[in-house]
Amino acid sequence: MPAAPSIANSVTVRLVLPARPTAVSEMTSLIEKAGGVVTGLDVTGSGHARMRVDMTMLTRDPGHADEIVAVMRTVEGVEIGKVSDRTFLMHLGGKLTVESKVPIRTRDDLSLIYTPGVARVCMAIADNPEDARRLTIKRNTVAVVTDGTAVLGLGDIGPLAALPVMEGKAALFKRFADIDAFPICLDTTDVEGIISTVKAIAPGFAGINLEDISAPRCFEVEARLREELDIPVFHDDQHGTAIVALAALRNALRVVGKRLEDVRLVMSGAGAAGTAILKLMLHAGARHVVVTDVDGVVHRERADVLSGDHPNHAWIAANTNPDGISGTLADAVRGADVFLGVSAPNILSEKAVASMAPDSVVFAMANPVPEIDPELAARHAAVVATGRSDFANQINNVLVFPGVFRGLIDAASKHVTMDVLLAAADALAGVVTEDELNATYIIPSVFHPDVTHVVADAVRRAVAADPAAEAGDADA
Amino acid sequence: MPAAPSIANSVTVRLVLPARPTAVSEMTSLIEKAGGVVTGLDVTGSGHARMRVDMTMLTRDPGHADEIVAVMRTVEGVEIGKVSDRTFLMHLGGKLTVESKVPIRTRDDLSLIYTPGVARVCMAIADNPEDARRLTIKRNTVAVVTDGTAVLGLGDIGPLAALPVMEGKAALFKRFADIDAFPICLDTTDVEGIISTVKAIAPGFAGINLEDISAPRCFEVEARLREELDIPVFHDDQHGTAIVALAALRNALRVVGKRLEDVRLVMSGAGAAGTAILKLMLHAGARHVVVTDVDGVVHRERADVLSGDHPNHAWIAANTNPDGISGTLADAVRGADVFLGVSAPNILSEKAVASMAPDSVVFAMANPVPEIDPELAARHAAVVATGRSDFANQINNVLVFPGVFRGLIDAASKHVTMDVLLAAADALAGVVTEDELNATYIIPSVFHPDVTHVVADAVRRAVAADPAAEAGDADA
Repeated sequence: MPAAPSIANSVTVRLVLPARPTAVSEMTSLIEKAGGVVTGLDVTGSGHARMRVDMTMLTRDPGHADEIVAVMRTVEGVEIGKVSDRTFLMHLGGKLTVESKVPIRTRDDLSLIYTPGVARVCMAIADNPEDARRLTIKRNTVAVVTDGTAVLGLGDIGPLAALPVMEGKAALFKRFADIDAFPICLDTTDVEGIISTVKAIAPGFAGINLEDISAPRCFEVEARLREELDIPVFHDDQHGTAIVALAALRNALRVVGKRLEDVRLVMSGAGAAGTAILKLMLHAGARHVVVTDVDGVVHRERADVLSGDHPNHAWIAANTNPDGISGTLADAVRGADVFLGVSAPNILSEKAVASMAPDSVVFAMANPVPEIDPELAARHAAVVATGRSDFANQINNVLVFPGVFRGLIDAASKHVTMDVLLAAADALAGVVTEDELNATYIIPSVFHPDVTHVVADAVRRAVAADPAAEAGDADA
Repeated sequence: MPAAPSIANSVTVRLVLPARPTAVSEMTSLIEKAGGVVTGLDVTGSGHARMRVDMTMLTRDPGHADEIVAVMRTVEGVEIGKVSDRTFLMHLGGKLTVESKVPIRTRDDLSLIYTPGVARVCMAIADNPEDARRLTIKRNTVAVVTDGTAVLGLGDIGPLAALPVMEGKAALFKRFADIDAFPICLDTTDVEGIISTVKAIAPGFAGINLEDISAPRCFEVEARLREELDIPVFHDDQHGTAIVALAALRNALRVVGKRLEDVRLVMSGAGAAGTAILKLMLHAGARHVVVTDVDGVVHRERADVLSGDHPNHAWIAANTNPDGISGTLADAVRGADVFLGVSAPNILSEKAVASMAPDSVVFAMANPVPEIDPELAARHAAVVATGRSDFANQINNVLVFPGVFRGLIDAASKHVTMDVLLAAADALAGVVTEDELNATYIIPSVFHPDVTHVVADAVRRAVAADPAAEAGDADA
């Protein structure tokens, strides 16, 4: 699956061309022969002999862009000027702004929103802390917290380099759920350091979105924060992924006419996302689940399980694989109905997919390169999904976290429970109507206008129906 | 000095009046007799026999508003509806919003600002961390950090109740310096807890504004953070106050024709603000300074100084009061040229002011009630200033912190030095021209269009001229 030219690698080249009739078409055809896709052309100046042009094109990657520019230089009489990268241009100065909602034009305005007027608002909150949800930004504000250890597919790039992702996440919170989210990039990767910092900054927030914290630390960070804070804590890489995967699987099984309770489900990956997906699948009723990792099938007799050094693997062994099978991923998927991968590129062979049960479902969600090329998988499986935006059925957390937090905040939830996650998944699945449902449309687009509020409504109802979600113990 | 009706205590009363010709004027005159000031009157509905009216009025305080409403109820045929408090209305839902600067309308937009495009921006920063100041919100973002222990004149009201003040501060940062500031309200008052939390969240910020942290903890918190962080740390209650006080004093001395080096200066208050003002005055050249606190004049033989338990008092004793005087505040001010108070209400008598040198200067900055009623002080002093907005010469930090941070951020300063503070003070003083200067105009209005950029320019130049401010040791 070679990368196609994409908007994420769009560049604008400023150049001067000789003013001969075919100069522009020669140039665009050269660019296209070199594999670029010209998407824009602005003549920004013209004289008798020369014209100035800005050419914008999609490329495959920065190296490809360099190659194209080198080819462009070979045209006789051309002068290449500044080459601008559209992605970097969009990031100049950062992607967020903090604005005042109230005007500050006069001394009277100052007296109302600052001293002396603000003192009465402070005292009202001191007397009744719940008023902070009415009179401050706590009403609608989420912290997007990372330590930068597991950023996208990039790994441990540190808190500063993670900031553009957290800004993007905050921008999505605003766009899709009208939530004010603010990035908090932590200069510590220590579990206790993360926990104490998040607890210390919690008063001003209505919820905590943990992001891109590597396993297994993320499990303890989340569990402890849920125990020790009175606002919802949600690790999107775990639970956002789990919700959207379950929603997509619900609809995939509708397409093939199978029931979650009955299917044989093989999962590849026992990391943060894999474990969360597993737990939600079990909570939703899945009974025949086998988990594999780099060492093959997880079972009760495996060395790492017996050693007690991997509590997470021990939990998986105790709660899956009822028949006690062992072996490789290929062994496990033989005859299985569903493959769910959140693991590594190209680990599932076409032959393995061919060995699955009839009407099989393959979710190859590893990013950016899936467990199997979805086109290969589709030769044998009835329904295929990936995390990629350039293939049908994109499993994308953006479908989930805005609505989940909207619902949690509106319900003033203190905890996130499994029933809340399940309600969100079922609501998201329900956005695809019976008429729309087919093998290439098991999950709506992130721009579907109903997604956020349908998910948020379901979360609000689930919180209201579940005393634990309002004030009790965390169990998700 | 009884409180006057003010905008900070503005209420709107919704009422129904009988439709007789004089009903409205009867009502407004009743309100005025009760001490309220009617500022608005909207007829929101009318019928043959009755009219619906929203009456907005200034009151002295919430108790006064209740009294006025009780009087309004006595009018025959009136029905009093909802009474709204304008200050609370302005605070509903909080005062800040976090917005995306980039549009998110299409899948292409998502690819540019989020995955996969954002990955290249992340890697650019991982390769060159300084790029974060170009490609992320770190370029322009300040954390407004408090533990809620010394909020306005309200004292230790906790982090949640302090949030409205921090939001207001962030709104002022935006309004006056186009800085994105975000409130961080800490659920810890422990010095080490505050320090480790601020250090942990520092990567995403270009500067830290400490706010309303009580003395003496604020000294250690600031000193340690300056030592351990590579972004500027500024405790506004200390240094903002010091800068504006010095700027005002420079101009007050221009008015009376005295020099800072020559004047006898008595300070009341050895807390956070007092200590910072003292240090800046000494750095600016003041030589004859005496500091007083609740125990009278600080001198080398005082018990708390000798005990070694108060390092701050020991520092003051060692660096002030060269003649070793002792006694009360009244003793100290006799014959003095300048009184600077950041202490407690009504501790300076009119008689004490009368005993000062000719052409004396009195800055009574205790909030909300000054050390002496400024009208009494003005009977004897040539120049009087307070922290109050309803009297001439308001010493207001809003004049300082926006421009100081604008300058520090633009210069990518790593540390705040005494020379930077001094430059800011002198620049602020210079905003008042020779033509404008008089005893009631020693400091410009916060809405003066030049203030922020003049202060910011001076700070930028001071940082550039001072290697320590760019990268070296903190000494302010």
